Amino acid sequence: MNSFGTLFRISIYGESHGQETGVILDGCPAGLEIGETDFLPDLNRRRGGAQKGTTPRSEADIPEFHSGVFKGKTAGSPLCIAFKNENTRSEDYEKQKAIPRPGHADWVAIKKFGGYSDYRGGGHFSGRLTVSLVAAGVVAKKILSECYPELKVLAFISELGGMQTVEAGLQRAIDAKDSVGGIVTCTVSGMPPGLGEPFFNSVESLISHAVFSIPAIRGIEFGTGFKAASMFGSEHNDAIIDTNGKTQTNHAGGIVGGISNGNEILFRVAVKPTSSTPKGQQSINLDTGKLETFSVKGRHDLSIALRVPVVVEAVTAIVLTDLLMINRLVPAVFGDKR
Amino acid sequence: MNSFGTLFRISIYGESHGQETGVILDGCPAGLEIGETDFLPDLNRRRGGAQKGTTPRSEADIPEFHSGVFKGKTAGSPLCIAFKNENTRSEDYEKQKAIPRPGHADWVAIKKFGGYSDYRGGGHFSGRLTVSLVAAGVVAKKILSECYPELKVLAFISELGGMQTVEAGLQRAIDAKDSVGGIVTCTVSGMPPGLGEPFFNSVESLISHAVFSIPAIRGIEFGTGFKAASMFGSEHNDAIIDTNGKTQTNHAGGIVGGISNGNEILFRVAVKPTSSTPKGQQSINLDTGKLETFSVKGRHDLSIALRVPVVVEAVTAIVLTDLLMINRLVPAVFGDKR
Amino acid sequence: MNSFGTLFRISIYGESHGQETGVILDGCPAGLEIGETDFLPDLNRRRGGAQKGTTPRSEADIPEFHSGVFKGKTAGSPLCIAFKNENTRSEDYEKQKAIPRPGHADWVAIKKFGGYSDYRGGGHFSGRLTVSLVAAGVVAKKILSECYPELKVLAFISELGGMQTVEAGLQRAIDAKDSVGGIVTCTVSGMPPGLGEPFFNSVESLISHAVFSIPAIRGIEFGTGFKAASMFGSEHNDAIIDTNGKTQTNHAGGIVGGISNGNEILFRVAVKPTSSTPKGQQSINLDTGKLETFSVKGRHDLSIALRVPVVVEAVTAIVLTDLLMINRLVPAVFGDKR
Amino acid sequence: MNSFGTLFRISIYGESHGQETGVILDGCPAGLEIGETDFLPDLNRRRGGAQKGTTPRSEADIPEFHSGVFKGKTAGSPLCIAFKNENTRSEDYEKQKAIPRPGHADWVAIKKFGGYSDYRGGGHFSGRLTVSLVAAGVVAKKILSECYPELKVLAFISELGGMQTVEAGLQRAIDAKDSVGGIVTCTVSGMPPGLGEPFFNSVESLISHAVFSIPAIRGIEFGTGFKAASMFGSEHNDAIIDTNGKTQTNHAGGIVGGISNGNEILFRVAVKPTSSTPKGQQSINLDTGKLETFSVKGRHDLSIALRVPVVVEAVTAIVLTDLLMINRLVPAVFGDKR
Repeated sequence: MNSFGTLFRISIYGESHGQETGVILDGCPAGLEIGETDFLPDLNRRRGGAQKGTTPRSEADIPEFHSGVFKGKTAGSPLCIAFKNENTRSEDYEKQKAIPRPGHADWVAIKKFGGYSDYRGGGHFSGRLTVSLVAAGVVAKKILSECYPELKVLAFISELGGMQTVEAGLQRAIDAKDSVGGIVTCTVSGMPPGLGEPFFNSVESLISHAVFSIPAIRGIEFGTGFKAASMFGSEHNDAIIDTNGKTQTNHAGGIVGGISNGNEILFRVAVKPTSSTPKGQQSINLDTGKLETFSVKGRHDLSIALRVPVVVEAVTAIVLTDLLMINRLVPAVFGDKR
Repeated sequence: MNSFGTLFRISIYGESHGQETGVILDGCPAGLEIGETDFLPDLNRRRGGAQKGTTPRSEADIPEFHSGVFKGKTAGSPLCIAFKNENTRSEDYEKQKAIPRPGHADWVAIKKFGGYSDYRGGGHFSGRLTVSLVAAGVVAKKILSECYPELKVLAFISELGGMQTVEAGLQRAIDAKDSVGGIVTCTVSGMPPGLGEPFFNSVESLISHAVFSIPAIRGIEFGTGFKAASMFGSEHNDAIIDTNGKTQTNHAGGIVGGISNGNEILFRVAVKPTSSTPKGQQSINLDTGKLETFSVKGRHDLSIALRVPVVVEAVTAIVLTDLLMINRLVPAVFGDKR
Repeated sequence: MNSFGTLFRISIYGESHGQETGVILDGCPAGLEIGETDFLPDLNRRRGGAQKGTTPRSEADIPEFHSGVFKGKTAGSPLCIAFKNENTRSEDYEKQKAIPRPGHADWVAIKKFGGYSDYRGGGHFSGRLTVSLVAAGVVAKKILSECYPELKVLAFISELGGMQTVEAGLQRAIDAKDSVGGIVTCTVSGMPPGLGEPFFNSVESLISHAVFSIPAIRGIEFGTGFKAASMFGSEHNDAIIDTNGKTQTNHAGGIVGGISNGNEILFRVAVKPTSSTPKGQQSINLDTGKLETFSVKGRHDLSIALRVPVVVEAVTAIVLTDLLMINRLVPAVFGDKR
Repeated sequence: MNSFGTLFRISIYGESHGQETGVILDGCPAGLEIGETDFLPDLNRRRGGAQKGTTPRSEADIPEFHSGVFKGKTAGSPLCIAFKNENTRSEDYEKQKAIPRPGHADWVAIKKFGGYSDYRGGGHFSGRLTVSLVAAGVVAKKILSECYPELKVLAFISELGGMQTVEAGLQRAIDAKDSVGGIVTCTVSGMPPGLGEPFFNSVESLISHAVFSIPAIRGIEFGTGFKAASMFGSEHNDAIIDTNGKTQTNHAGGIVGGISNGNEILFRVAVKPTSSTPKGQQSINLDTGKLETFSVKGRHDLSIALRVPVVVEAVTAIVLTDLLMINRLVPAVFGDKR
């Protein structure tokens, strides 16, 4: 089901070429100032059209508050934020209907939904829906900044197309007339210790669950990550050097026993190259049963990874907000005027 | 909270040196034959004492059925399987109480539970509790084999201590008098297509959530994993070559758009080196506020990773069983005798 | 949180005088024909303006499908159905702001939401939101009729204002210039046996949970209900008279041990009299701290109970749909065209 | 599934004649003193053997702490409390196997669990399992008394066998050689206002959900209950007489708009007469397909209702504890000694 969270619950809905895509946020404290302008910076970071290498399709991305906001503040009731889909070219997808595109969800959608799912632009599978994740993330970040101003979630591209700079990575894609993947690094500084639980609600479990909700993610690693597999215990351990739990090193990436230890949380996320590539591809034609070569028309990113950092920040902020709420560190009402 | 699952729900409880550790399985179909001998192979794979490089502490690990089994079959009511803790040496931990061990959950446990948590042997954080995960996994595997005999979950050590064989890796640890990490590879063959959902209940979200519930895990990657970050889209895509969704390559690791596509699921898990190492370490003494050097006594693994494959299989089988139930592919009753 | 259900999940949002009220339905099978006209009969049963004794405020109540419907059928993705709020007279409530109306949620809303909640027309507490419950109920009823055509959910007023007919009850209200309560009886015939579970997911638990989600409900009783308290066991028991579980009597109301037994489910719901009454009332003025007499302006029902039957049917159908899904009695896709 | 709760989660397991019945409590704060003696008063109130009119079967009912308690206090990890079943006479049920007893879950259990459920003594459906609910209730009550000493949950028999006193009601049963039902009234005083939510998490929804988890419950009504159906709005409304929300009358039973308003919560619960009655009854023999007359042997209550008050208090305390936790009114740790 398309919901996530215990006290701060998020549900998303929408199809790429449907009327709108949106999110319901349940459990948002009352009294938080909220307005359109709050969303623009993060929505811009996500949008196509502005960044070199991203899709020319660009939506206006104006958030509409369908419920839960009154006189510019959250009312305490479920918050519905929606985005109209305007800039769609549905005919780009009509011809493709019978030929599931490799790397996309076309085939599994037909398998799972019996041929009834909205196939245009990826339908409910589309990266378009990440606009809803980002919107929810903006609200989460606002809550966090009200309760824990020192808590900062920051994600950025640390590698693109195998190269150490975005420019070089994009150039590689342009030269090859192909799409490339990337790696996103995310840090959380100022994290209160003691959040999360061992086993099923470990911080890693919750963050990875949320991160893998983002389309196109192939892997996640915390702290030393896969390098830890070839380290020794004595070099991997983080010596605790004061009674606040500060560690000398931070191989653990701020999480031990599933619980935050107050040191910086650090994790890296692998993003696959965009499945839609200008290059010719082959797939099965479901009507004829024969293989066909084709080229995906439409407008697509050279690297999906460029859009991912703000989405990773969003889902991370959502997880942290839920954890803070569970641990009674977020008030029920902001700026109480009772 | 220590629960997981939608229709096939698992809750674990227990402390390393408490009376027992156990699991409640809710949603198990009735009529499944179940007995002590079903559990022995996987419990043996997990146990200390037998494998070179694992802890000499060995528990008998006899599963007790406290509820939910009648005349040798599941009754349809919640199934409680428990393991008595017998082979404990609590005095190993008494002296250590004031000095949180690096890499262990000692410090976060004090922070989170106000000093009240059972610190002996890692308490509720202990890897001992994975015996409950393995037991639940045995039940899940039985259900899967009843419904989908061709579905096989298989995990194994693919790298240890940075070496390609277990022997070489262990030798590295022994020579260094230190602990080492490893990588576990897991495959699921014969997976029905169409399981999972886009976004919050993607197969990767569920598997990673479950895998990160296992102590000592640092990373997970699906299909090409982190390598995908430096591949091109055209080489990364998997061409679909027949109407059953079979793909020519399998970079996606059997999951697209969060949904299984019928090809083999493949993922790799990074395990950190055991935190308890014979080597001397330093940490803060919470009573004196001063740094202290100490050596962890007690009995510990040279590589936790050796125990992990069977636990990865277990949690994966649990996730798959829940997915099959949600998709109506597991009957309510086996061998109906109504 | 404003969500309910395990596999068939419903979340509602909206305020009485906000932009819209709506519902997200998650878990709806794909391929179900769905369109505006499906909703009109039940929405009409609920609407004000048409029935004598109900509020002159009448909304057009046109359902808009914001997501999840494609070419006239459910797509398998979350279904968002929304209703614009149009016929609002917000000034009716402005003056009332400082004086919480007795029987309404004004005071608790201020207490819980710190004065930030939308107070107009009852805000998120308003019976207006039951339009969302009814819409979800229409979808549930469609699913039920596809899978179990013999399963019928039927609710009706069995008592109004203490009188045995609706007419007589309404007349009592008109004569007294006051509002009256009522009793709604609901039956479910053609119920498959074996649904529900003992203890926390008993059919009564789920139905009562859902029914008490409807505003203005004071009580619920199953089968013989409160009368059972003064019956003897031998007269209360239902003798089983065939191997299909048919019982001679049906004091149990079709549910035993929390599980449906195949006989007709029957329950009765008590609805309180509308809190908004033309009669003068007294309450505290939160600004002055003094008691004040006032008369509630605006447009209100003489008996809320008249609207309740269709809402009781709706939530009951929602619960039953979830139970059928949990028990694998609803296909994943209707009219599979794969 | 047999779980309930958001932050304070309870799962119960066990069969009447199985090894044990127990409960897992997840989310219990650390540092709460807890020991065997805490449970004796409420377990005594529940036990058979002591009260006139209750079953001669009496279990010792000694709570065993299988996990979650360390040095006499809760450790913050899941708390498993179990009760060995000792005083069972299984042969009482062997002959009855083919003849489902009217009013009991025998027939539905066979229908739902394919003949595999443990039928002895009612198996997982047995009222025996309420000992687990009561144990969980004791823990909940302790938490409540630590945080809100003025909050008192109190339930008592207000009517038995249609008579105003317990004695008279029991005499009626003895004279008729039959079983009788009863009504339990429950009050919650000192309730903080603002707990609960409109719609799906209303206080009535949660309490009724929990109360109907108790076997043998036929109805529940809040405040004026079914009487409200024939009252006028002006007489039913509760005028608010001070700025703390105190009301002049309390027809609402302390809950408005699904939220507590600070006045006493009051509700009444109808308990059916014990299904097992000394009188002869008729039922179908599933083997022969013919009707048979029989008499239920074994040891049974003259009125189940006598045991119910303490169980109603227990489940109510559990719901309130969860609500207080959700509203950040229960600390994470008691008597913090960090």
